[in-house]
Amino acid sequence: MVRTLAVDLNCDLGEGYGRYHLGQDGDMMPWITSANIACGFHAGDPEVMARTVDLAQQHGVAVGAHPGYPDLQGFGRRAMDLAPQAITAAICYQVGALEAFTRLAGTKLVHVKPHGALYNLAARDYLTALTIAEAVRSFDPQLILVGLAGSELVRAGQDAGLRTANEGFPDRAYLIDGHLMPRGQAGAVITEPDQVAQNAVRLVTEGITQNEAGITIDTLCLHGDNASAVENAQLVRRALERAGVEIRPLEQIVAE
Amino acid sequence: MVRTLAVDLNCDLGEGYGRYHLGQDGDMMPWITSANIACGFHAGDPEVMARTVDLAQQHGVAVGAHPGYPDLQGFGRRAMDLAPQAITAAICYQVGALEAFTRLAGTKLVHVKPHGALYNLAARDYLTALTIAEAVRSFDPQLILVGLAGSELVRAGQDAGLRTANEGFPDRAYLIDGHLMPRGQAGAVITEPDQVAQNAVRLVTEGITQNEAGITIDTLCLHGDNASAVENAQLVRRALERAGVEIRPLEQIVAE
Amino acid sequence: MVRTLAVDLNCDLGEGYGRYHLGQDGDMMPWITSANIACGFHAGDPEVMARTVDLAQQHGVAVGAHPGYPDLQGFGRRAMDLAPQAITAAICYQVGALEAFTRLAGTKLVHVKPHGALYNLAARDYLTALTIAEAVRSFDPQLILVGLAGSELVRAGQDAGLRTANEGFPDRAYLIDGHLMPRGQAGAVITEPDQVAQNAVRLVTEGITQNEAGITIDTLCLHGDNASAVENAQLVRRALERAGVEIRPLEQIVAE
Amino acid sequence: MVRTLAVDLNCDLGEGYGRYHLGQDGDMMPWITSANIACGFHAGDPEVMARTVDLAQQHGVAVGAHPGYPDLQGFGRRAMDLAPQAITAAICYQVGALEAFTRLAGTKLVHVKPHGALYNLAARDYLTALTIAEAVRSFDPQLILVGLAGSELVRAGQDAGLRTANEGFPDRAYLIDGHLMPRGQAGAVITEPDQVAQNAVRLVTEGITQNEAGITIDTLCLHGDNASAVENAQLVRRALERAGVEIRPLEQIVAE
Repeated sequence: MVRTLAVDLNCDLGEGYGRYHLGQDGDMMPWITSANIACGFHAGDPEVMARTVDLAQQHGVAVGAHPGYPDLQGFGRRAMDLAPQAITAAICYQVGALEAFTRLAGTKLVHVKPHGALYNLAARDYLTALTIAEAVRSFDPQLILVGLAGSELVRAGQDAGLRTANEGFPDRAYLIDGHLMPRGQAGAVITEPDQVAQNAVRLVTEGITQNEAGITIDTLCLHGDNASAVENAQLVRRALERAGVEIRPLEQIVAE
Repeated sequence: MVRTLAVDLNCDLGEGYGRYHLGQDGDMMPWITSANIACGFHAGDPEVMARTVDLAQQHGVAVGAHPGYPDLQGFGRRAMDLAPQAITAAICYQVGALEAFTRLAGTKLVHVKPHGALYNLAARDYLTALTIAEAVRSFDPQLILVGLAGSELVRAGQDAGLRTANEGFPDRAYLIDGHLMPRGQAGAVITEPDQVAQNAVRLVTEGITQNEAGITIDTLCLHGDNASAVENAQLVRRALERAGVEIRPLEQIVAE
Repeated sequence: MVRTLAVDLNCDLGEGYGRYHLGQDGDMMPWITSANIACGFHAGDPEVMARTVDLAQQHGVAVGAHPGYPDLQGFGRRAMDLAPQAITAAICYQVGALEAFTRLAGTKLVHVKPHGALYNLAARDYLTALTIAEAVRSFDPQLILVGLAGSELVRAGQDAGLRTANEGFPDRAYLIDGHLMPRGQAGAVITEPDQVAQNAVRLVTEGITQNEAGITIDTLCLHGDNASAVENAQLVRRALERAGVEIRPLEQIVAE
Repeated sequence: MVRTLAVDLNCDLGEGYGRYHLGQDGDMMPWITSANIACGFHAGDPEVMARTVDLAQQHGVAVGAHPGYPDLQGFGRRAMDLAPQAITAAICYQVGALEAFTRLAGTKLVHVKPHGALYNLAARDYLTALTIAEAVRSFDPQLILVGLAGSELVRAGQDAGLRTANEGFPDRAYLIDGHLMPRGQAGAVITEPDQVAQNAVRLVTEGITQNEAGITIDTLCLHGDNASAVENAQLVRRALERAGVEIRPLEQIVAE
């Protein structure tokens, strides 16, 4: 029997702050199944969080927390040397704050995906990854931890007893060894919408291979903050459907 | 049958930030029954919050959230003109963040007490008070809302269907009409420890009278950030016990 | 002899922060003579400030500091209750920080215009106005203080011995008594570009009348953060030129 | 002819924030000749800066800027990955802000010493060091740049054409190669006041040797934030005077 291919589509949303708007949250919602919502440290403020959770709830999009470094000026993209207990506390604080808004909206928190430089560090550093995973599990063991496909974060999440999701990036080129091509290299970022869509289909139907082991992609990250964001999202979604891939929320993708 | 007199003793704690220490949290814990813990806006950071919740849990002290204005520089003591939806979101965010640390510590959140200028505004402005009360109830209707005895905040909490607690200040003088003497007036702040203790006993045994209605004091605020803080706490506690007043946590004081 | 009519055109710029962009700084520069640059408290960060000062310098636009309340989340538009010494220090800090970038760019600081809620408070509260004026004079007595035409801020600036500039808002309706129509009232904000241009001409050629005294408008504020900002600026500028009004930098408008 | 030995005594001051006090600024002032004043990023706020500059001015202590990373929560001690233009702007902003308060106090800015993790990075990374040095020189070429004795920061300052000062730490052990013993190692931090004083004398009279080159210590850092801070300062000062070392402000130590 052939397993039906399915994937979740996620997007980083709620990245405004005060008077600052960022991303096309409302226009992206119809095309995605999971929203990673900023929690006030690298982006987002309490009102933005409230509005974004409401928006997701209205569109039936699953809500996840997107915690980052305490660095609004650097948008959480600058490496910061935080001690493990600082990471634990920062994750716990942000996830708790976002979860509060899901209660107000009458929905629930489904997943956690670290942001930016913290995501990148957790992808390659097992100690950081485990610190994050254990903080998430202590808060709520039912949460799904989303990390770079095949990374230390996914491994640490499994070691911590969490459900995990392997994330793929359709607008990024992958090396043969299954790793992302570093951003500095030519061709690392794919901007042509059709190629993004093709890459999405390939990532889901073929997965990636790391150390001779196949890794299934559970969720694809669609960026919501560039001019062709919505077009990309539509093309990716249609290409996946044409290829027989079902678009389903993370909870239906990730096994218990 | 005579009702046994009982009161909760609360203290604002967890008011450090990063390298900054404030208050004598460890020394106050043995003498109190409820800790109001700062939530990162006017004071407190995630690590301080984690440590303070742990400390309360170790001492069997009930944990409450102490949300304030987003103004670390002004310690939440400066009036800020926030729209109602900004207050809702700020309360929700801070209470959620603190509640996360109670999960990690294996304890639970019991009450919410606004801080500083927000507390003062909520005491006299019903709209602000109701905004806070409804945010708290939406987050968790089991939480107890603590406000200035006889104030709009207590009234709004009741209107919102929350359990409420009337708070008294043993180191503050009260006017005959039941209101606090404004800080600017001579004698408004009581510094002599024996007088603080006597005031505490009087507040609990006699209550206060506002508009000809008697108000029972449910909880007394002990300040933890001055040189005689611990001595004051001990004297208050002993004076209450001598007067036959039982010291009990808020949940045993406040009726369903 | 008829005095040649002349006016300065100013715009609030440098209001981005980190990854957040706001306003059309580059497109506005060709049409204005003075830039009010945010200083990092309500908007702006050090890099944004550096870039905006450079941009102004390249366009020959005079640089002014635009200090506000320490409230990035509220964009400095929320009233905050700061003590006079806090206002003095906040003004001094922000003006000094911005002046540093004028040194790097090889230009100089010409004026100071408070932002948002601080601007509004200083317009009606003489103590606040004088606190600001004295802070500016202590920093550099050559600076020009820009305030709402006919307001307490202009009066306080004069009392402090500073050169002052009366500011008019072409996209706002004025009452017969010379005051701005409150934003809440119908017609308070003028959005039709042609009407904005006509209002600009009227403000400069007729001035406003307060308490039977005529007030000459020295500088007009052009908003740079809405869709028709550049169009408005062009129309205002052309209408002024057609009416025989010269567009000149503030230093040529304001007498010693 | 024997050159008279002389050294400057500096201390990091103005490290409070809002309600938070840190260090014994008033008690340290009589014993030092230079104050490194925090500029609001890792510590200090505008009011604290104003008060500390005033205090230094009253004691005849030279004022320096002590800029750090934008990380109040981490007190500027956590490494942050800032791009060169972000460092330039952060230095410029903070130095300009502090210089403003020297104008209000009727004194002047004499030196700049980076703080914490930025100081440490600049000590070993020439690019960071040069970025800092050039920002300082662009702001004011008369400023003295203070760095770890023999470090890249001193080298970069010289390359940038600035006067530089080699700083020694009497409460830290030095390795034979002239480098500080890493904090992790046993004996790296000297706490015994007499030993601190002896180390101070040795550093000034013998200097340190790096790569076979002798380095003269121009300024000694006295810490002001521990229990024995004032005692240490007195002992160091007396020991130096007994050893015939004159205590002089930096400007008299550092050659043009």
